[in-house]
Amino acid sequence: MQFRPYDIIKTKRDGKAHTRDEIKYFIDGYTRGDIPDYQVSAWLMACFLNGLDEDETFYLTDAMLHSGRVIDLSSIQKPKIDKHSTGGVGDKISLILAPAVAACGIAVPMTSGRGLGFSGGTLDKLESIPGFNVNLTEDEFVNVLEEVGYVMSGQTATLAPADRKLYALRDVTGTVENLSLITASILSKKIAEGADSVVMDVKSGSGAFMKTLDESRALSHSLTKTAEKIGKKLTCVITNMGQPLGRAVGNSIEVLESIECLHGGGPDDVNQLVSLLGAYMLIHAGLAKSVDEGREKVREKLHNGEAFDRFVHSVKRQGGAVETIKNTEGFNMASSEASVPSKQKGFVCSINTEHIGTASVCIGAGRFKKDDTVDAGAGIIVHKKIGDSVEMGEGLATLYFNSQDSLEQAVSMVQNAYEIGRQKPEPFQLIYEVIG
Amino acid sequence: MQFRPYDIIKTKRDGKAHTRDEIKYFIDGYTRGDIPDYQVSAWLMACFLNGLDEDETFYLTDAMLHSGRVIDLSSIQKPKIDKHSTGGVGDKISLILAPAVAACGIAVPMTSGRGLGFSGGTLDKLESIPGFNVNLTEDEFVNVLEEVGYVMSGQTATLAPADRKLYALRDVTGTVENLSLITASILSKKIAEGADSVVMDVKSGSGAFMKTLDESRALSHSLTKTAEKIGKKLTCVITNMGQPLGRAVGNSIEVLESIECLHGGGPDDVNQLVSLLGAYMLIHAGLAKSVDEGREKVREKLHNGEAFDRFVHSVKRQGGAVETIKNTEGFNMASSEASVPSKQKGFVCSINTEHIGTASVCIGAGRFKKDDTVDAGAGIIVHKKIGDSVEMGEGLATLYFNSQDSLEQAVSMVQNAYEIGRQKPEPFQLIYEVIG
Repeated sequence: MQFRPYDIIKTKRDGKAHTRDEIKYFIDGYTRGDIPDYQVSAWLMACFLNGLDEDETFYLTDAMLHSGRVIDLSSIQKPKIDKHSTGGVGDKISLILAPAVAACGIAVPMTSGRGLGFSGGTLDKLESIPGFNVNLTEDEFVNVLEEVGYVMSGQTATLAPADRKLYALRDVTGTVENLSLITASILSKKIAEGADSVVMDVKSGSGAFMKTLDESRALSHSLTKTAEKIGKKLTCVITNMGQPLGRAVGNSIEVLESIECLHGGGPDDVNQLVSLLGAYMLIHAGLAKSVDEGREKVREKLHNGEAFDRFVHSVKRQGGAVETIKNTEGFNMASSEASVPSKQKGFVCSINTEHIGTASVCIGAGRFKKDDTVDAGAGIIVHKKIGDSVEMGEGLATLYFNSQDSLEQAVSMVQNAYEIGRQKPEPFQLIYEVIG
Repeated sequence: MQFRPYDIIKTKRDGKAHTRDEIKYFIDGYTRGDIPDYQVSAWLMACFLNGLDEDETFYLTDAMLHSGRVIDLSSIQKPKIDKHSTGGVGDKISLILAPAVAACGIAVPMTSGRGLGFSGGTLDKLESIPGFNVNLTEDEFVNVLEEVGYVMSGQTATLAPADRKLYALRDVTGTVENLSLITASILSKKIAEGADSVVMDVKSGSGAFMKTLDESRALSHSLTKTAEKIGKKLTCVITNMGQPLGRAVGNSIEVLESIECLHGGGPDDVNQLVSLLGAYMLIHAGLAKSVDEGREKVREKLHNGEAFDRFVHSVKRQGGAVETIKNTEGFNMASSEASVPSKQKGFVCSINTEHIGTASVCIGAGRFKKDDTVDAGAGIIVHKKIGDSVEMGEGLATLYFNSQDSLEQAVSMVQNAYEIGRQKPEPFQLIYEVIG
């Protein structure tokens, strides 16, 4: 079939639907470097403004998925289930969930990302464990998965290369926030990992990319429909990112909080989410018949030490300093701290969670630009969450930092992120709904 | 003022209006090479789909106009009026009009283009005169204008460089056919030539880029409003490109037809258009009070030989072989000819003029791609025009060619471009309306 990039751009510009062959030609041509960035960015803007329908979204996902290698996990006999989060603030769920469900008998092939903007990234958190290597080859990826039961790594160069090129281009051309493009980006990577099915934590609210429940629902429907067309089971759990998850927002401090959870402790909301997402993974795997049964199995692994053992095994196998996580010393911790006092007395009614995330980036815990370096020791511990009562001057949060540069800005950002009211608000609803 | 290309793309993506400073920053950055093609093409697609309002179109035109040099014609004391055509088939008007109005006392600083697709280009026609040099420096441009009264040249590198970059990008990203972008492209070049005012021949119909009168009206309004904001007088004459202009479609043969007109002969429609457009140029220049008076003055210069004398002067001054145009020998003419017989008896009801233009390109008279070479001797002489009666087998047109390669295709394209009916159609309306 003979196509011209120009005609493909015009088709989408004029609001017409692409054929499967057109999209395959365009994505393959771009991946090979035959179609230049400037034609693809014009097409991306046309997609952004005129939309892609369900079939086109499927064609795009499929073309991106097959733009590189699909990891062959057929040598692993266990059910291979992955979990993915659309990104949030204080979201350390993967660090606890993966070892817990691995202990239940699932193989978890997880490629993760780095933090960018207000949202943290699992790879940055893992790298706060001295020596932990997140850059595995495909062979190492499969070997660690087989040996430990789960593996966490950055995306290899051979995995969905079209997504890497497209994402970088979308990032600088204002074409990120489109459901179909987001769907294809997430799914092509996740499916290329070789998992049989995926449980997706679709974050919603002030600390998420999708600010409203409607947007999160729309993304969930797009993801589940597209996955179905590809022939992979996908369940989306829409959860409330209206306040930081747990208390820790940063890298070292989030790993420490995760270790608490892996010892059967830690914050309630983190544990609730771990056990719910784990339950769906167990159901996908055929290892639980109900959500309650699945939840119970996950909790058991957190309380009986098996999840922590897996975590230790993983850290050891990926080159991390095991003594660091065993006695929780040796982490890179910030040298200074500052309390953020409340300006009012009352109840915490809402928290602008994006601003908490951005404040953590200001003090070094994340990146504004891709090539910024991350300070593993920096972060924020949130003392007050929605519904908590607070006295005037009482600490809302504590900032941990090595550089004072943007401290003042970060303190006032956290302070202003809190809305304090006279009336105790409705209880915070962590879980919204499950789709797929 | 500090802007980011990314924010400018998002502004237009979200359907918001740009400020003057935003557009200036973006166009200047692109011209300098600081803003890459892939960001500009995303922005162009957002402009295409979400539109630019009147102010934005003015800001864009102004920024493109000032992206390079504006030719200084202050040394020339005459009124400096240019004419521009949006492009058509058999459109040799400039070759006749410029010397005629120059003989009336107007200075005509004309930069022209080359043919692309079905539409011919003045530079290609001029180059069929052996030796004629269309690549003048800015100094030569001004000198020839001063000496001859008119000058015809290709666009110099310093003239509206933003337009050259933008046009090349639009051409490959499906973002050509947008009124605001077309307006800014045409006007920025025309005004950079240094003319005081412009008369625009806005072509409408099957042989034009604007196929409908509504589209041509919309472009005319956009052009006149934008010119007004810039402070230049612009008059748009919307004319019917529903059949080839004159009888000749090609390069050498169009120059020959032009010479007939410059001697007071030639086809009626060409002469009508020359005198009408010339009349508006004379009115702009203050050299005629009415269209009738202006028309009469132009006709006089065509009949008394003064227009031809100017043409001879121009050819001599730009290096062309004067004897060629004086005795109309020495032109590069095609070696073979083929008649296109009518398949029916009746009246010519319509002519798909784009197809006539495309047929002429097939036999070598134009370019499908920018780097195709043009055969000066190839072309089509149209014998039958709208309203003419025709016998079955009678010649509709004659094709002149050197290469037989696409001859069959060209013959059938011309044949099928003619719609022959039983009833004589309404007389062909050459002039639609005047705007501005």
